[in-house]
Amino acid sequence: MKALEEKILAEGKVLPGNILKVGSFLNHQLDVDFIMQMGQEIARLFADSGVSKILTIETSGIAIAMGAAAALHVPVVFAKKHRTGNLSGEIYTTVVHSYTHGQDYNVVVSRDFLTPKDHVLLVDDFLANGKALEGLIDLVGQAGAQLCGAACAIEKGFQHGGDSLRAAGIRVESLAIIDQMDDSAVIFRPQPAADGAPISI
Amino acid sequence: MKALEEKILAEGKVLPGNILKVGSFLNHQLDVDFIMQMGQEIARLFADSGVSKILTIETSGIAIAMGAAAALHVPVVFAKKHRTGNLSGEIYTTVVHSYTHGQDYNVVVSRDFLTPKDHVLLVDDFLANGKALEGLIDLVGQAGAQLCGAACAIEKGFQHGGDSLRAAGIRVESLAIIDQMDDSAVIFRPQPAADGAPISI
Repeated sequence: MKALEEKILAEGKVLPGNILKVGSFLNHQLDVDFIMQMGQEIARLFADSGVSKILTIETSGIAIAMGAAAALHVPVVFAKKHRTGNLSGEIYTTVVHSYTHGQDYNVVVSRDFLTPKDHVLLVDDFLANGKALEGLIDLVGQAGAQLCGAACAIEKGFQHGGDSLRAAGIRVESLAIIDQMDDSAVIFRPQPAADGAPISI
Repeated sequence: MKALEEKILAEGKVLPGNILKVGSFLNHQLDVDFIMQMGQEIARLFADSGVSKILTIETSGIAIAMGAAAALHVPVVFAKKHRTGNLSGEIYTTVVHSYTHGQDYNVVVSRDFLTPKDHVLLVDDFLANGKALEGLIDLVGQAGAQLCGAACAIEKGFQHGGDSLRAAGIRVESLAIIDQMDDSAVIFRPQPAADGAPISI
């Protein structure tokens, strides 16, 4: 999605440790009109997949998941990183290692909201080593639900989580894939544009 | 908002400790089409307030804030409950006590995304004792921004946080106000409907 690549170039900041800061529009301040556009693009990509529910993980996946869900007219379920007092009843649970925070989380979803009837699209803001998506895939499997695929805003291609999932046969669509980045340049992987033509930045 | 009152009656569950579970549509599973409708109602209520930015608090405020922001075409900033590795730069910070979790959080916003130019509408899913809104009001004050008011989906009127804020001169709009609840009944405070007529359930 060319508009996202341009926004990353205009507003993103690369910090040491392979961190890309996009807090101006994606995960602290939210450019909601732009996030709704990204959601429409995700909906276009998965229009024929029979998606009945979107699964994401708190916190920063919620906004892009909302954008996609508004375009697909399906509910979102967000997996929670801690079991809280408000999450009673039976749950599915898995463990996810957070690269950003350097620690493991218990990630849980209520059994009420993920069932064998669901056709699930995973949506998240970032895809790096793929650990968050692997955790969500585990939850989908525990529920006996159907996995339609995964959509992310920004994939760090050089961390290879997306390619591993694709090699495992999962459809993974990222609106921008960064193959290389440092404080002087961000290099995107060429992808087909919405009209089928290759894009270049 | 009559549709919200009806949804609370149909799907909400009252648990001991004054907890109202609305995880089927508001804070675990998200009924996105309905949340977008709630956002439109918030936008209608504050249409003349010159809102330039919505401020909410992670996690469960993000969805309703997105709905309001999509209708008002303004960005959202969500305050974070922990200082994370990704939140570099100078921050505004305050302490909020969580009734649900029984603990204090540091709540932070980057100075980059809250400035004296902003006209801020606070949005959250629940309003109970008002501690979360008080924290956000503190952050708005630290930034020297203008406060337009606060909008919440569900106010627990019997915990009086909303009334205290109103008494302090802040415009607080809640789409449903619960004056009394137990496991057999939920009693709503009468409010003017969108057309000005009083509503009754």
